[in-house]
Parts: sequence; C-alpha cells; structure tokens
Amino acid sequence: MDADRFARAALSRVAEPCDKEVPGLIDELGAVETLGRLRAGHGTLARFRARLASVDTERDLDIAAKVGARVVVPGDDEWPDRLSEIPVPPYCLWVRGPLDLAETVERSVAIVGSRTATGYGEQVAADLAAGVAQRGWAVVSGAAFGIDGSAHRGALAVDGATVAVLAGGVERPYPSAHATLIARIARDGLVVSEVAPGSAPMKSRFLARNRLIAGMTRGTVVVEADLRSGSRNTVKHAIDAGRHVGAVPGPTTSMTSAGCHQEIRDGRAVLVTSADEVIDLVGDLGDDACEPARGPVRPEDDLPPLDASVLEAVPFRSAITLDAVVRQVAHAPLMVRAALGRLERLGLVTESAGTWRKRPQPRSAKSG
Amino acid sequence: MDADRFARAALSRVAEPCDKEVPGLIDELGAVETLGRLRAGHGTLARFRARLASVDTERDLDIAAKVGARVVVPGDDEWPDRLSEIPVPPYCLWVRGPLDLAETVERSVAIVGSRTATGYGEQVAADLAAGVAQRGWAVVSGAAFGIDGSAHRGALAVDGATVAVLAGGVERPYPSAHATLIARIARDGLVVSEVAPGSAPMKSRFLARNRLIAGMTRGTVVVEADLRSGSRNTVKHAIDAGRHVGAVPGPTTSMTSAGCHQEIRDGRAVLVTSADEVIDLVGDLGDDACEPARGPVRPEDDLPPLDASVLEAVPFRSAITLDAVVRQVAHAPLMVRAALGRLERLGLVTESAGTWRKRPQPRSAKSG
Repeated sequence: MDADRFARAALSRVAEPCDKEVPGLIDELGAVETLGRLRAGHGTLARFRARLASVDTERDLDIAAKVGARVVVPGDDEWPDRLSEIPVPPYCLWVRGPLDLAETVERSVAIVGSRTATGYGEQVAADLAAGVAQRGWAVVSGAAFGIDGSAHRGALAVDGATVAVLAGGVERPYPSAHATLIARIARDGLVVSEVAPGSAPMKSRFLARNRLIAGMTRGTVVVEADLRSGSRNTVKHAIDAGRHVGAVPGPTTSMTSAGCHQEIRDGRAVLVTSADEVIDLVGDLGDDACEPARGPVRPEDDLPPLDASVLEAVPFRSAITLDAVVRQVAHAPLMVRAALGRLERLGLVTESAGTWRKRPQPRSAKSG
Repeated sequence: MDADRFARAALSRVAEPCDKEVPGLIDELGAVETLGRLRAGHGTLARFRARLASVDTERDLDIAAKVGARVVVPGDDEWPDRLSEIPVPPYCLWVRGPLDLAETVERSVAIVGSRTATGYGEQVAADLAAGVAQRGWAVVSGAAFGIDGSAHRGALAVDGATVAVLAGGVERPYPSAHATLIARIARDGLVVSEVAPGSAPMKSRFLARNRLIAGMTRGTVVVEADLRSGSRNTVKHAIDAGRHVGAVPGPTTSMTSAGCHQEIRDGRAVLVTSADEVIDLVGDLGDDACEPARGPVRPEDDLPPLDASVLEAVPFRSAITLDAVVRQVAHAPLMVRAALGRLERLGLVTESAGTWRKRPQPRSAKSG
C-alpha cells in the first residue's frame, strides 16, 4: 500500500471528519506529512496523542479486508471528483461492494428523510427510489430507519444501484436492525464510510456523513422531515455544495412533512412528486448544456429587485435576523425569507442559527 | 334608480360576462349609450335582439328586491376598486347580505378548490378559512361542493365574514343542495353575482365568475385541485390580475393535490400550510410598504440569468411550446417551466393551451 493511502487510512481513524486543523494541513502538506505532524504532537496537535497511541492502522486494514472493504483516496479512478469540490472533503473513503464508486455516483440522487417516517413517506421514498433506479440513476442514502431504509429497498427491489453512507465504520452495520439490509447493499451496491473500521457512529459523525451524501450526488431529495430533522442538515450541505435540492410535499397536518414544506417555501428546495420530476431536477440537460452566451456576470448582477434589496440589507461582518431584514426592506416576512433562500442557493448569503450574513465571493467572475 | 345603474342591470341580463364587444362599448360610451346601441341592434349587435325582446329589467329588479339584493355599480362606495383593475370588469354586481362589499373584500382571501375534495382537503379548507377569518380577513369562495363549501363554513363557524360569488343569479342557490349554506351566507355575509336574477349558472359563467373571485380578493389560495380543476382557472385569473397566489400541498399520491403541486412547481403559487402563512402571503406589509428607493426599472431589467434567457426565447407575435423553449435555452424542463411561471407572475409572458408568448408591456416605466 502506498504511503499516501496508508496515511489517509490512519488519519481517518485519528482525526474526526471536519476536524478544524487536519483538512487544512492535508491541503498544505499532504497526508503523509500531516500524519507525521500529528505524531510529533506539537502545540494544538498534542490533542491527538492519546488516540494515536491506541491506533493500529494495520489492524484496521485487516478488519476492512475481512469484510471486503477497500480504501479509496483522491487520485484513484474510483474517487468521486465531486467530493473534492465540497468545503471539507473526506480524508479517504472505506468502500465495500462490487460497484465502482465514481461511476456509480456520477448519476446519483440522494433520497433522505425522517427516521420516524409515516407509511406515506416510506411508500413515496420506495417508489421514487425504484423510479430513479429504473432510469439508471443510483440512490444514495444513510441506511437509517424510515425514509433512508425505504429508499435503499426501493432501489434494490428493481435491481438498481444503491449506496449506503454510514456514520461509523463499514464493518459495523448501524442501525443493527438494518444489518441484513446493509449486508445486501454491500453485496449488490456499495457501503461507504469516511471513518475507519472500529469507529463508532456518533452524533457529530452523522452530521459529517450527511455532507458526503449531499456532496457525492447530483442532488438531494427530502421525502419527509420534521422541522428539526437531520435531513434538513443534508439539505444545507447540498446547497453549500451547489447541488440540486428537491422536497416531497405531504399533508399539512403531518409534522413529518413540515420540514419539506418549509424548504420549499424558503426557496431552498424544488417541490417534486415523482421520479420523473426528480430526474428533471438533477438531470443532465441543465448541467451539461450551456447557457446562451452572455458576458461574464456575477450572480448578484441579475437579481430581481426584492432579492437585490435583501442582499443589500445583509451584512458581511455580522449576522442579521430575518425580522431585521424584514424591517429594512419593508416586505412580507414570507417574501423576504424566500428571497434569502434563493440568495442562499446562489451562494450569496449563508444562514446560521436563524441569522444571515453575506458570503465572501470568489475573486474570479462567475459566468451566469 | 339612476339611468347608469338601470342600464348596467339590464346589460347584466342581456350580455354575457366577458362578451367580446360590450365591455369595450361601455368603456367608450358608458352603459346607457351601450344599451341603446344594443337595442338599435346594428351589425354585430343584432345578435342581442332575441334576448332583448325577453328581458324585463323592472321584473329582475323586483325579484332582486324580494331576496334583498341590491345593484352595485362602479362609482358606488360599495364597489370594490379592485374590480375596476381587472382586464374585464363586471357590468354591475347583484349583492345580497348585510355587509359592505368594498369594506369586506378590502382585506379578503379567496379559498377555492376541487368540488371532489378529500376529507383532508375539506378539513384544511375549513381550518384555513377559520384561521384567516379570526384574524379579520374575509373568505371569498364560490359556494360549490367540496373546498368552497368547507371554506365558507369554516369562516361562518368563527363568525367571520364570508362572500359567496355565484355563477347564476343571486336569487337561485346553486348547487341547490347548498341552499341552506347560501341562505346563511346571505344572512351573515354576502352573496354576489354579476348576472341578473333569472340567469342560470352555465359553464362559461363559472369561468367568468372565477375571475371575480380572483379579482376582488388580495390573493387566492387553492386547497385541492386536480390537474384539470376549475380552480386552476381561478389561479390564472389571480395571476393575470397581479394577485398573490398560494397553494396547499398534500400527499403526492392524491390526484386532488396534483394541481396544487403543479402550480407550486411552476412558480405560479407559493406553498402555504397555515392561516398565518396565508396572511403572510397576502398581508399588508408587502403591499403597503415601499421598496427601498431605486431608479425606475422595468421588471425585465432585473431577471436572473435563466429567466432572462427564457424571456428572450419567447416570441411576441407567435406562441412557443415549453419544449421549444427548453431546446433554445438548454436547461432542464423543470427549470424552464418554473422560469416561465415566474415570468408569468411578473406579467411578462402569458400562457394559453400550453404555449407561451410575450405580453405587451405598458409604455410607462414601472417601479420596483
């Protein structure tokens, strides 16, 4: 095994996904030198000492080999290029299953949602997954109870490709009640994790995992989500990564559809009701074809008047509440909120804990 | 009774709403002279002879008086100014009930939808109507089976104001199974029609009636509608009149929600799930407050790039299909359809039988 791959495998056990320092060090120094720095343990890197002492990467690789998992790193043919574009790429991916990961996710959709789904939601998730899988698209999800499981099963039921991205090591099915499902996915599809064997699923790793589901796919569809659902975190990652986002409506009386309705109202997601509409959303045409030729424009050059006013009201260096923006632009809260959603999808503003700030824009002009 | 009021009452029995010639004649000559021209019956106006022979306006006014109906005409305090802004205003309105029509509809929402509603839809319609009525908004609808009836009942249940706009004369409850409901509305709210007593409800009058429901309110909310529902016609009128439009989502498995979902996907309606969200949509702030000062702009000056491209692709003098626009702008059909919906809401394009053309713009610059 080459040194870079070994170092990345080791780092995936030592450092948490989205660690504050490690991704930057890898960018700057490469994985091998980064691992060396962690071992030297100077300054803030001293915090890795305890975990480094207990890490045995050879053993992790043995465990992986026993379950048929491989380590995929940037530069491999199987590495999904899309994952190099997200704000914090994984150090490596531990991958089980017979498919080629890069090829599989090239045309893929994430179908995610509530663990406490309704029968309606589970049915819709399975139908959508079967529908997109039959049209040659892979279904990516998180193997959780509820919507995730139904999405995987829907794809498997039509012999479609499906990818389960786990928050813990690929050798430990989680939730354990889905062990059979995950084994079936490992046999016919792909089971993927960014953390090494032996890593337990923890809350922070679920949140980090969501960015991979959003990041490796063309788009994310939320089938059911209550207002505080983790799948809304996946939506946020999808928006941050510039991916398409769809949401399935449901009865307004169902709290597990409230999160979907909110995403649609806020302009963050497009309403989708069928596999055709999902493919319409993420399909090739929009991505591969070009806009009619126009001079280079920045996204903020072409905003509708309300959106332009809202953007003007949002500061760079501090955060502003929705109410404060509403007062400044003197428009209905619903309209202002939807404008903020559109600006967020354009990457012009960013939201955190209900407050908004402008997002720094790349220096180079971006063509519309 | 003054001559203008009498002439308008007569015209409302002689000429169909939205007749091709009569509204233009009234604009040009006034109602009295228009009625005179119809009586003279020259040229194309000869077509009114038969009906004129059988019309007895004095008798119509007697019938109206018996059911307590009055004739309201432009210039009356009770005339809703909003109805003078729509493309084809009614000749007059026959009005039963204790409320002042203009005051009542000043803050009003149309709640409409399928006659073959589900229990879910009827419950949502009644809840929304009760919610907006409790907040001081009048509920306008068409007294039909299904959503309309539930909306009226929801408003009445909380002693709220409600207005039923009928397609036939105000003296004949239609549907007859709703006679008790309509009588209750006439007692506590308002029953309105633009056709004189004795006029039967006919298909063309239902379509014309929908423009009044859309035109006299601040906004229209569709609760349930299948893809071919008449309430989508009301949405079209609301868009044409520049009103707010909301649609309530439902299960994707319910065909009576499919029309609502389509309106939301097409960018023609905003997704709403509660009375608060409805009022957020139609409420005062957006209408009464001003945009931050900007130079005069035309709506097409500030479009996002895709919308601008789509607008460019739509011709003035002929109509173009969605597919043809998709080919020209090379974007996903869903995106193009949503852009057309936004352009339609801005009054820049108009749709007819699935094809699109540019809409002539007023000469004067329009601010904001």
